[in-house]
Amino acid sequence: MSHNSFGHLFRFTTWGESHGPAIGCVVDGCPPGLALTEADIQPFLDRRRPGQSKFVTQRQEPDQVRILSGTFEGFTTGTPIALQIDNTDQRSRDYGEIKDRFRPGHADLTYDLKYGIRDYRGGGRSSARETAMRVAAGAVARRVLGAGVTIRGALVQVGADRIDRANWDWSAVDDNAFFCPDRVAAARWEQALLEARKSGSSLGAVIEVVAEGAPPGLGAPIYGKLDADIAAALMGINAVKGVEIGDGFEAASLNGEANADEMRMRPDGTVAFLSNHAGGILGGISTGQPIIARFAVKPTSSILTPRRAVDRHGQEVEVLTKGRHDPCVGIRAVPVGEAMLALVLADHLLRHRAQNPDAPRVARLPRN
Amino acid sequence: MSHNSFGHLFRFTTWGESHGPAIGCVVDGCPPGLALTEADIQPFLDRRRPGQSKFVTQRQEPDQVRILSGTFEGFTTGTPIALQIDNTDQRSRDYGEIKDRFRPGHADLTYDLKYGIRDYRGGGRSSARETAMRVAAGAVARRVLGAGVTIRGALVQVGADRIDRANWDWSAVDDNAFFCPDRVAAARWEQALLEARKSGSSLGAVIEVVAEGAPPGLGAPIYGKLDADIAAALMGINAVKGVEIGDGFEAASLNGEANADEMRMRPDGTVAFLSNHAGGILGGISTGQPIIARFAVKPTSSILTPRRAVDRHGQEVEVLTKGRHDPCVGIRAVPVGEAMLALVLADHLLRHRAQNPDAPRVARLPRN
Amino acid sequence: MSHNSFGHLFRFTTWGESHGPAIGCVVDGCPPGLALTEADIQPFLDRRRPGQSKFVTQRQEPDQVRILSGTFEGFTTGTPIALQIDNTDQRSRDYGEIKDRFRPGHADLTYDLKYGIRDYRGGGRSSARETAMRVAAGAVARRVLGAGVTIRGALVQVGADRIDRANWDWSAVDDNAFFCPDRVAAARWEQALLEARKSGSSLGAVIEVVAEGAPPGLGAPIYGKLDADIAAALMGINAVKGVEIGDGFEAASLNGEANADEMRMRPDGTVAFLSNHAGGILGGISTGQPIIARFAVKPTSSILTPRRAVDRHGQEVEVLTKGRHDPCVGIRAVPVGEAMLALVLADHLLRHRAQNPDAPRVARLPRN
Amino acid sequence: MSHNSFGHLFRFTTWGESHGPAIGCVVDGCPPGLALTEADIQPFLDRRRPGQSKFVTQRQEPDQVRILSGTFEGFTTGTPIALQIDNTDQRSRDYGEIKDRFRPGHADLTYDLKYGIRDYRGGGRSSARETAMRVAAGAVARRVLGAGVTIRGALVQVGADRIDRANWDWSAVDDNAFFCPDRVAAARWEQALLEARKSGSSLGAVIEVVAEGAPPGLGAPIYGKLDADIAAALMGINAVKGVEIGDGFEAASLNGEANADEMRMRPDGTVAFLSNHAGGILGGISTGQPIIARFAVKPTSSILTPRRAVDRHGQEVEVLTKGRHDPCVGIRAVPVGEAMLALVLADHLLRHRAQNPDAPRVARLPRN
Repeated sequence: MSHNSFGHLFRFTTWGESHGPAIGCVVDGCPPGLALTEADIQPFLDRRRPGQSKFVTQRQEPDQVRILSGTFEGFTTGTPIALQIDNTDQRSRDYGEIKDRFRPGHADLTYDLKYGIRDYRGGGRSSARETAMRVAAGAVARRVLGAGVTIRGALVQVGADRIDRANWDWSAVDDNAFFCPDRVAAARWEQALLEARKSGSSLGAVIEVVAEGAPPGLGAPIYGKLDADIAAALMGINAVKGVEIGDGFEAASLNGEANADEMRMRPDGTVAFLSNHAGGILGGISTGQPIIARFAVKPTSSILTPRRAVDRHGQEVEVLTKGRHDPCVGIRAVPVGEAMLALVLADHLLRHRAQNPDAPRVARLPRN
Repeated sequence: MSHNSFGHLFRFTTWGESHGPAIGCVVDGCPPGLALTEADIQPFLDRRRPGQSKFVTQRQEPDQVRILSGTFEGFTTGTPIALQIDNTDQRSRDYGEIKDRFRPGHADLTYDLKYGIRDYRGGGRSSARETAMRVAAGAVARRVLGAGVTIRGALVQVGADRIDRANWDWSAVDDNAFFCPDRVAAARWEQALLEARKSGSSLGAVIEVVAEGAPPGLGAPIYGKLDADIAAALMGINAVKGVEIGDGFEAASLNGEANADEMRMRPDGTVAFLSNHAGGILGGISTGQPIIARFAVKPTSSILTPRRAVDRHGQEVEVLTKGRHDPCVGIRAVPVGEAMLALVLADHLLRHRAQNPDAPRVARLPRN
Repeated sequence: MSHNSFGHLFRFTTWGESHGPAIGCVVDGCPPGLALTEADIQPFLDRRRPGQSKFVTQRQEPDQVRILSGTFEGFTTGTPIALQIDNTDQRSRDYGEIKDRFRPGHADLTYDLKYGIRDYRGGGRSSARETAMRVAAGAVARRVLGAGVTIRGALVQVGADRIDRANWDWSAVDDNAFFCPDRVAAARWEQALLEARKSGSSLGAVIEVVAEGAPPGLGAPIYGKLDADIAAALMGINAVKGVEIGDGFEAASLNGEANADEMRMRPDGTVAFLSNHAGGILGGISTGQPIIARFAVKPTSSILTPRRAVDRHGQEVEVLTKGRHDPCVGIRAVPVGEAMLALVLADHLLRHRAQNPDAPRVARLPRN
Repeated sequence: MSHNSFGHLFRFTTWGESHGPAIGCVVDGCPPGLALTEADIQPFLDRRRPGQSKFVTQRQEPDQVRILSGTFEGFTTGTPIALQIDNTDQRSRDYGEIKDRFRPGHADLTYDLKYGIRDYRGGGRSSARETAMRVAAGAVARRVLGAGVTIRGALVQVGADRIDRANWDWSAVDDNAFFCPDRVAAARWEQALLEARKSGSSLGAVIEVVAEGAPPGLGAPIYGKLDADIAAALMGINAVKGVEIGDGFEAASLNGEANADEMRMRPDGTVAFLSNHAGGILGGISTGQPIIARFAVKPTSSILTPRRAVDRHGQEVEVLTKGRHDPCVGIRAVPVGEAMLALVLADHLLRHRAQNPDAPRVARLPRN
């Protein structure tokens, strides 16, 4: 019941503050014999790295990961994998103004009320910098899932502007600064974000993550349901305020005929669903269809407009946040959301095979 | 890491199938010395009980709870509290038709793919009947939270029809069959649900749950955030497909100025927020404001219209579901949602005071 | 992190007090498809049952177990298995004398200091009656381990009188009232225990439990070592004060040459150890050899000689314990110790195959 | 349920191999506001450090600990504390001989059977080097327990030679190379260990650890009993084969009159026990008396005498272990045992106050 650990059998624990010497994590429970070097992890960190466009924070961090344990001659050994990234751009500055003030929308006040002390430099532990370790751990999770499982994410809404799903093109995602699968929307967002940035404001966003190729049977009802664990995983990402599976809130507006996914048999004996309103999960267990989740990210709370706030001494103050910030934190949440989905699936894969070692890897009928 | 347990320090484990002899739960970690008898639990079960209106299942269950351990002379002792409800209306019937068929939108297929065997009678373990034990455990959680914390829920949307929040009246909630806080909407829903029932169809719904009076400081970042645990708790309720905290998905459409809740000081030295977009949680930790969450429930999958499906033998079949079903399972999810929120908060109250025994019970500044 | 749960993947949670209406447990994580009815569990409970000889408590309890969930048509379904035993001989009596007094050697004082309240009737939650549920859960664990794993226990010491290991005969164990594998010692013990009983005194004991046929690879270093978990499992049995693996404390007196078990190859490619000082565990992981553990049980604290004690009000009193007690609680600890060993192994079997699904079931070399 | 984590609320996770770049741990759940710098941890590491006498391994490691997170301006913040020690004396050598051979008494074979791969350099993950992180985490645990709780350990037996308890003098413990509280025995052991070292042999040992000042009420029955958790903690130390609480195995030889600790009242209203056979624990809960545990350490398996063994290819070989080894690994286990006891107590202190915030810190009667 560790506060800073996630998962059960495949489990990672993160540590570190924004402006400490380093951040890191320990990945425990990883199966042995998987090929793993820094080169398998770094590309995912590079996708999340700050400073890559004008739409994200200008903090310059190479985010170079090192593996300190748990592998031998390029393979996992089954022992804990320690990953570490040095903090190199903890810009030396005067924190006199920020250290006693509770910025609206930030965790400053709540950390202080809970702990009575906090490392205020760069947000300390509550900084989104921590999510780098989720991405690193997520890269290991992908190894556990294997090449048959593909996990991808995309930004599907910025502010109130949604993509046109008819334009969805996965290959577009890496062609723009927003992980946007709709090239038309990407152009619009560029304008909107330039404006937000110029005015010192910020915008929210919605991210969609999809796992294809995951076997059926993942999820442990009643209190380890796959969708419940995905919900916790995504809601726990910084600034997230909502999570959906499949049709999500739209499902409330459907009637029973429209919502339930019908089934037919494929010639190869596997089940074909005729739709995927369920987002690949029924009764908390994966069906073998693509697993689809979305999460909403609030607009960055650090803005240039002065806001009414209070300080540690109970004084009323005005706060405006200078410094390096993402005008839309949702953008860099895309690789983080992918990582969290991978981490949930890897954990459930291990849980599932512990209890059900003979369960099929595809939705084949008859099962026996 | 039990599949059927929820919570960490205040923790409950449920067992039982829809048509077995009984269902039950074990509540562990409850503080000693709290007044607790069946009379403290039964009213909450009565709110959730089937058969109370024509808009819910006609199954007739008194749902009479018994306390089998963990109390002595009317007070909790700190030892595990076993709660049990006998199943009395497991209607004897012929399951010949259903036992081999996988109903669309149900967990039949996934349980079978995962376990290779299932108790198909009434949905077995995946039946919403299990939620009775959540409500029972939730009543104990309310004791732990104490009289200062109020947890209430309401139905805020049926199908695509939302309440008018200007009409919100908590006292209306128990005056209609839908836990609806808007008397005007309640009248519309009555019509809509009568139609759905008559046509053998079903509707989805959205529920809002609110906790008032919870202390600041609840929530254990990074991987025990209060909102993440609430998300898991609500997403794990049968048929739920989406969860929001505070403004939820709407937050994505706001800019930073509109979203972050500003603060002023109250004369008594506590912090006053000028709005509550955050839903009472910042950085995964409660602020002391009301904690607000919503969840979307899909329409009941059991409907009278024939749907295409498959059976255990890999044959394509048509399924229509006779029998006793809720035309809108979202209705009875209201007390279940309240219970889950209470259970999360009780667990976090214990976690919080374990690590931070001297933290204040209100958002008073200066803290020290 | 439940106080009343044991195990991780194969996990059980017990509840109930000595004089409440019933005791029970929930076994979670059991693999599906295992044949299981009450008849598979009852024989183990019968071995532990009170009232079977003059050397154990005269409480008369049929200890008839019922399965309330988790099986269907005689097979486990993968859902939680609820087991329950009604308390039928909670002898009605006057507790006036005992209810405020803290009996020496009992948990009365510590429960009171911890919880401020306790069910004093028959020892309440701290009664050894709880161990019946361990035995019941242990019977399920044996199913998980399968027919290839044999778990047996024996009493090897009563008071200071040890068996002669040269006389060890497993078939003798069920021929005497003491689970003694040495018929000669059994005769001596009969005399010693008759005397202890007559004088209202009590004797301690040492139990040995052995698992044969368990695969190599069980145990999760560093903090889920097999021997560490066995130690916790056995030390947690009522009245246990010491636990050993293999040579145990004797190992301290050996030199390195004598202690380390040498190895040779068997013709079938498996490793043969030439001795088993290690008790089947190296580095916290099973070797494939028999797993051997011993535990020491203190003499029953309920004796007829008056002892100096205190009461709830801080008054000094004298206590002597009338009523039904085992003159040597170690005797009935034999089936309990077997059960705990089975429970640890079943949990580790699942943990092991989750992480290492391709590990061999026997110590065959080369592994790959 | 992490394999490499220990504890529940106060919890640490270790990582690292003997010959990797570093070893480390993450301490999670630590209360905020405790003074903590490297200087609070280093002295405990120095006591365990290799190379300090001719009776322990000649590996030269400064074991300099660094705090990488979780403190701010010299105080804990409630966020995870990352501790790290660089490995500086991973002597470059040829592992050709050892890499395929399974040394008797070592974890070589079992790691290989479990994982199919292992870092054989210096024992890899199974090296006692990992215990340095236990000692580091234990220093943090001592801070949590506070100055009122004293935890000390001593070596009470080397080979078959026990101390004379009448000679016990805590001040002697740091005056000899063995942590021996009996100066007379220390002199004898020096001779015995010089001989063992000269002949390339090794000796076992027994360690006693004592916690004074711990409050009553620690321990969570039934499956989080304090003695069960201590047993797991100590049995999980490398090379340990037995654990006792209080009188331990000797308790089996006592009768009920001799074993149960009688009680009287002190003038200050606290309970005075007239003896401490129980080792400070009744019913799995601390009494407020000193908590006493002992554990047996087997002789070092690395010896100069050739032993029969096998290799990865299934070939029979002879193994003799050159290199740097402790002739009695039990010596350096003393600070490790102290640390494990501190870690168990700190975890239980938090667990206890979560459930029982109003429980007294001393055994005062009447409680209410």
